[in-house]
Amino acid sequence: MPPLSPTATLSVSSSSLSFASSNKPQLSFCLSPSAATSTSTTGLTNFISLAKPNYPIRRLMTTSAVSIEKETVISERPHTFLRETDGEDDGSVRSRFQRMIMEVQESVCGALEALDGAGKFKEDAWTRPGGGGGISRVLQDGVVFEKAGVNISVVYGVMPPEAYRAAKASAADVKLGPVPFFAAGVSSVLHPKNPFAPTLHFNYRYFETDAPKDAPGAPRQWWFGGGTDLTPAYIFEEDVKHFHSIQKRACDKFDPSFYPRFKKWCDDYFYIKHRGERRGLGGIFFDDLNDYDQEMLLSFATECANSVVPAYIPILEKRKDTPFNESHKAWQQLRRGRYVEFNLVYDRGTTFGLKTGGRIESILVSLPLTARWEYDHKPEEGSEEWKLLDACMNPKEWI
Amino acid sequence: MPPLSPTATLSVSSSSLSFASSNKPQLSFCLSPSAATSTSTTGLTNFISLAKPNYPIRRLMTTSAVSIEKETVISERPHTFLRETDGEDDGSVRSRFQRMIMEVQESVCGALEALDGAGKFKEDAWTRPGGGGGISRVLQDGVVFEKAGVNISVVYGVMPPEAYRAAKASAADVKLGPVPFFAAGVSSVLHPKNPFAPTLHFNYRYFETDAPKDAPGAPRQWWFGGGTDLTPAYIFEEDVKHFHSIQKRACDKFDPSFYPRFKKWCDDYFYIKHRGERRGLGGIFFDDLNDYDQEMLLSFATECANSVVPAYIPILEKRKDTPFNESHKAWQQLRRGRYVEFNLVYDRGTTFGLKTGGRIESILVSLPLTARWEYDHKPEEGSEEWKLLDACMNPKEWI
Repeated sequence: MPPLSPTATLSVSSSSLSFASSNKPQLSFCLSPSAATSTSTTGLTNFISLAKPNYPIRRLMTTSAVSIEKETVISERPHTFLRETDGEDDGSVRSRFQRMIMEVQESVCGALEALDGAGKFKEDAWTRPGGGGGISRVLQDGVVFEKAGVNISVVYGVMPPEAYRAAKASAADVKLGPVPFFAAGVSSVLHPKNPFAPTLHFNYRYFETDAPKDAPGAPRQWWFGGGTDLTPAYIFEEDVKHFHSIQKRACDKFDPSFYPRFKKWCDDYFYIKHRGERRGLGGIFFDDLNDYDQEMLLSFATECANSVVPAYIPILEKRKDTPFNESHKAWQQLRRGRYVEFNLVYDRGTTFGLKTGGRIESILVSLPLTARWEYDHKPEEGSEEWKLLDACMNPKEWI
Repeated sequence: MPPLSPTATLSVSSSSLSFASSNKPQLSFCLSPSAATSTSTTGLTNFISLAKPNYPIRRLMTTSAVSIEKETVISERPHTFLRETDGEDDGSVRSRFQRMIMEVQESVCGALEALDGAGKFKEDAWTRPGGGGGISRVLQDGVVFEKAGVNISVVYGVMPPEAYRAAKASAADVKLGPVPFFAAGVSSVLHPKNPFAPTLHFNYRYFETDAPKDAPGAPRQWWFGGGTDLTPAYIFEEDVKHFHSIQKRACDKFDPSFYPRFKKWCDDYFYIKHRGERRGLGGIFFDDLNDYDQEMLLSFATECANSVVPAYIPILEKRKDTPFNESHKAWQQLRRGRYVEFNLVYDRGTTFGLKTGGRIESILVSLPLTARWEYDHKPEEGSEEWKLLDACMNPKEWI
């Protein structure tokens, strides 16, 4: 594990907690446990799944300064969550990113319903008075899927000036007020019933700040984050190779360095430190991405999100009806326990969401329907279960 | 929720994290995520289940300074884990506390095996070269119990001077080296199979520092912590009343203020903030207790631990064979999900243990064998499930 950046600092007072690293000029956000009762960030956690603390680039948010209004449940999904002043079809990145995640939610849910054959997604939508909102779609207890959630959300918030200042060295000495930000993302976790059919997670998100009004010359900031990763209970090498090949193909269209870099980032991020295991067999993960052309990164995120169906559905078609016994099911349930451990203990999106009072049902839809913890369970060396565990402990190059 | 103490501070660097409050002179411990690879606190988490952050009195430990050696598995439970220099039968509080937790482990496990009728406890024991160690006892998949763990442990460690200094205002200006500490505790979580039979948790612990050698006059510190609490999936008022009456009886033998104070502390501590629910129906909880006579508090902790069997076994005898259906079981499983959420997200003993690299299997033996998460599950108003949820959201005075 890379050590914590020597320049990293974390401070807590009764009103705010912030964590910033000066390794790279980046925006930071911070959160305060005490703000949980007064703010709501419903859906925010679905796409702000920040990298882990020992990454040099870090974003946290002082929720004391994150002013996101309480959501209002609505009966129909709206055409847009953008503020009118943003323009709906103005060709802006935020507008096009929103369109993309809405289309991805539609196409992924369509593909999953077709595969399941019987289960249907239940939709919950909400807006906020000042703009933003979200749509949760959940399919529970289908034929193929035990629990499948595909959420999108759009958030308008305000970040503390320290966060912006940490990002822009040039603004270090400028007195700033709170900086408005925009965030949008799609987030999904798919848990199939069959223990030979893997769990899939994907999440793509876009972040943007306004240019601070009180600091002439201090620019607007933006970045992309996301990833797609596979969590099987049993290894079918052809499935894992297929999955990683699709990720690599999406990456290679943009930069040959992307796949190796984001594959490693994924292995490092989904690490259950107290177990010395990854939760699964990885895929790609990236965060804070802004040092490439913005249009290129929008296309890249779109390509990745559009790769979810071709990466996952063929595997499910092959494995959804594989015969299994109770012992296979018990092992899948133990691995689901690990999934719960990662999400509740380490996943920064989840922990951020829980602390800031987000819409709990949307945040925790990522948890499996059922999970299991046996005392001191150790798979027999050389068994199929042991092979999975070994690959989670010692990440492999699959392609 | 009481607000975070205005004097509380939290700081993180690459080597340490500390959290201290000056509301009351108390020792503080702090931990560092980066120390996880170099230290082991096996079993420590089983009794250092610290109160939640918004309690004014706080203890954390800089693991950069906590030097606990790696454990060695042993084949038989030893007579003592105390260092020879401590004396085995010297009548010291640490010696008598150790004897008490060993006896409690023995008597509770005996009562549970007798009740279960078939399940037997599996024992794992370990020591450390410089003193200390632990014994985990786990009964899994019995007739009555799904999973029952009763652990004891003894730890010799070293705390950073800041921690001691925060505790003793008089030592504030004195230059101190690291302060050796001793900790011992018994910790247990009992999950029965029958959804009408409640889960029980109890934990009693004793902490002691040496008098700092380099600060003449700076005294030895000590304190007690612990509690016993009940987590049913369904309310049988007579059971809850019985359970709380036994807690009150134990408390009243020592101080009439104890039960009301520790009952409230328990309701406040076992709070799943993101749900607005307690994990169960409470009991008693206390921490940092040192402002009473030390002998009295040793007797009090002993009385509480000895009250576990009379408080719990009669309830289990009544409920272990109650007929139930799938829907009762599913609700129990959902409540088990809440138990997992509390333990992984909020319980300071668990989170401390996970971050400091303790013996994972001993720490996570508190998790149920199985748990469940349904999207947006809401019990029908007025139903038995709803009544439990209501009591978890609005703690009651049971006696």
